[in-house]
Amino acid sequence: MAEIHRASTFAPVNIAIIKYWGKRNPKLNLPTNGSISVTLSQDDLRTHTTASTSSDFTEDTLTLNNESQDISGARTQACLRELRALRKEVEHQDPSLSKLSDLKLKIVSENNFPTAAGLASSAAGFAALVRAIANLYQLPTSPTDLSRIARQGSGSACRSLMGGYVAWQKGEEEDGSDSVAYEVSSASHWPDMRALILVASADKKDVSSTAGMQQTVATSALFEHRASEVVPKRMKAMEKAIHNRDFESFAILTMKDSNNFHACCLDTQPPIFYLNDTSRAAIRMCEYINSLHPDDKPYCAYTFDAGPNAVVYYLAEHEDIVAGAFKSILDGKTGWEGPRGQHVKPHPGVEGIEHVAEKLQVGISRVILTSVGDGPRKTDEHLC
Amino acid sequence: MAEIHRASTFAPVNIAIIKYWGKRNPKLNLPTNGSISVTLSQDDLRTHTTASTSSDFTEDTLTLNNESQDISGARTQACLRELRALRKEVEHQDPSLSKLSDLKLKIVSENNFPTAAGLASSAAGFAALVRAIANLYQLPTSPTDLSRIARQGSGSACRSLMGGYVAWQKGEEEDGSDSVAYEVSSASHWPDMRALILVASADKKDVSSTAGMQQTVATSALFEHRASEVVPKRMKAMEKAIHNRDFESFAILTMKDSNNFHACCLDTQPPIFYLNDTSRAAIRMCEYINSLHPDDKPYCAYTFDAGPNAVVYYLAEHEDIVAGAFKSILDGKTGWEGPRGQHVKPHPGVEGIEHVAEKLQVGISRVILTSVGDGPRKTDEHLC
Repeated sequence: MAEIHRASTFAPVNIAIIKYWGKRNPKLNLPTNGSISVTLSQDDLRTHTTASTSSDFTEDTLTLNNESQDISGARTQACLRELRALRKEVEHQDPSLSKLSDLKLKIVSENNFPTAAGLASSAAGFAALVRAIANLYQLPTSPTDLSRIARQGSGSACRSLMGGYVAWQKGEEEDGSDSVAYEVSSASHWPDMRALILVASADKKDVSSTAGMQQTVATSALFEHRASEVVPKRMKAMEKAIHNRDFESFAILTMKDSNNFHACCLDTQPPIFYLNDTSRAAIRMCEYINSLHPDDKPYCAYTFDAGPNAVVYYLAEHEDIVAGAFKSILDGKTGWEGPRGQHVKPHPGVEGIEHVAEKLQVGISRVILTSVGDGPRKTDEHLC
Repeated sequence: MAEIHRASTFAPVNIAIIKYWGKRNPKLNLPTNGSISVTLSQDDLRTHTTASTSSDFTEDTLTLNNESQDISGARTQACLRELRALRKEVEHQDPSLSKLSDLKLKIVSENNFPTAAGLASSAAGFAALVRAIANLYQLPTSPTDLSRIARQGSGSACRSLMGGYVAWQKGEEEDGSDSVAYEVSSASHWPDMRALILVASADKKDVSSTAGMQQTVATSALFEHRASEVVPKRMKAMEKAIHNRDFESFAILTMKDSNNFHACCLDTQPPIFYLNDTSRAAIRMCEYINSLHPDDKPYCAYTFDAGPNAVVYYLAEHEDIVAGAFKSILDGKTGWEGPRGQHVKPHPGVEGIEHVAEKLQVGISRVILTSVGDGPRKTDEHLC
């Protein structure tokens, strides 16, 4: 049996605060506008991926959560092709290295969260795939260069190659060479950012984001204005808010941009609905929590991706107000039982929003407590 | 007892197909953009109003559905002031006329539909008030001139002073003198337009339209684009569709503009939601019905005002497909029992949308079948 080379990584989930929606080039996954996300802690949510290569392997394979995946799609192929080309360069420069670029790859991947939770698993998945192969090939490539490759697998994957607060710049080049992610600030710059994910009970999902965003580009009368006017200003303002650790601006921009994105979905023909009555109740609950602030500033900010789950950002110092308020009405749901959840005290002051509480009790199946985290972590735990 | 002068009218409800949302002058109810509506038949939905005047009356009074209403608001006062001024002119020109302009008014009004149904009752109400007083005063004023007055009571009321297909032009003058309604086409030009109203079960209403629209103007990043770019083009296209009796264009514009308006509501900070899961199911049901068309043209068009009720427009020739499809899943609800409803045959082909059907069965409390109709009708039936 031939030698097996192997490398493994963990990669994080990221949740956008300025949303990616719309491609100017679907083949290369080039977006109509920039986006910014928070990388979430891999202690809570992560994809674990092992990439191996051996002359014994007869074809490229990908396994996710023990199920064989189709690897022939143009997006996965683009990632593999680019990574092999980089390895070939390295081998060319150092002829003593094994010729791994000529061998088939075996990629084994596992998420530590249920796929049904509707979290953006493809982002973590493609980031882990690219990072694991880059480790296997011992590429000197920077995270930003790798983000250009991961982007071709799944747009938002480019933001999971870094930790903390990450921007994906739209880029101007036709070949996408400058449509890459960069770190706005590290997790350690603003480490007290927390996220409470409210996982909504399974409902039949609306159109996929891949199909939906191009319908929006083609039919919305508002979208072009969002992409060309609204988002560029918000990108700058959000970067500034992050640099200044200005939660008020961060929160207002986050909520506005989530609503603006979903407004463009609704303005699509036929309209796309990702928010349902449960999502609306989560928004009203956040507004209620924010109304408790003595200076009328936000304690928390909601955001929704292409699904009904709410992600609620807040600062650690307000955990008992924000997570506590949700715990007071959602205690008993899966997710509070860990050490982090047990630590949250139900907030006593939840009154006058019984209607909202009832909707959430019916519509939310579980919660996930997490925080801002770092970028992909190399690991010696290999999957096989 | 002094002589009583009296005049009565019926006035219709109108449902916009290009939506009014946003005031550029809240005091005068001057809109940020034009709008177009269909006047609905007074055989089905109407406000009945009697205006009386007598030297015995000691104050202006208004009664709606047997409940005394506050008449001191600036909007009602503006209507009364303008109408009295016009009467004064008439009296000045013909001194033989009674000096009614100096006397107090008693206005008695009744809607033949439940206020709780969430139909735009203020439009019919102010149109009836203005029309009844104009009749009482025997004003020679044209419907368009009266629309300028009714607009100051409730913006969309100006569109209920005419029948058929009615536009309210934005106007350019600061005093609002050119912000008036005009008939795009009479009901008889395109008489086979039908409307099925799906009344959603009472839910706590979001913000009022008066407050909501100004929040949108103040906070939405998309609204200005809607008002200045999107609506003006649609106004022209919709007038053309009506002139040409082009249901396909009418339907597509109607659906797009409803979605565009609700998108701007969602883009408001805090977001305004009028559509709920029941509304969404009504949209999906219309899309299903339209998918049955052999040439992929719309059989029907949905539109939603500031609430969850759907109004579904269709042509008489497609009654069995459109109303029939809704009857097949909503049979047994109040509203089908009249002669018009009994005539509708449940459409047999409703399959594969059980999820949508279930949502509608739970969320819709009654249906109203109606059609395009004419403008206010003078009547000798007086309320007192």
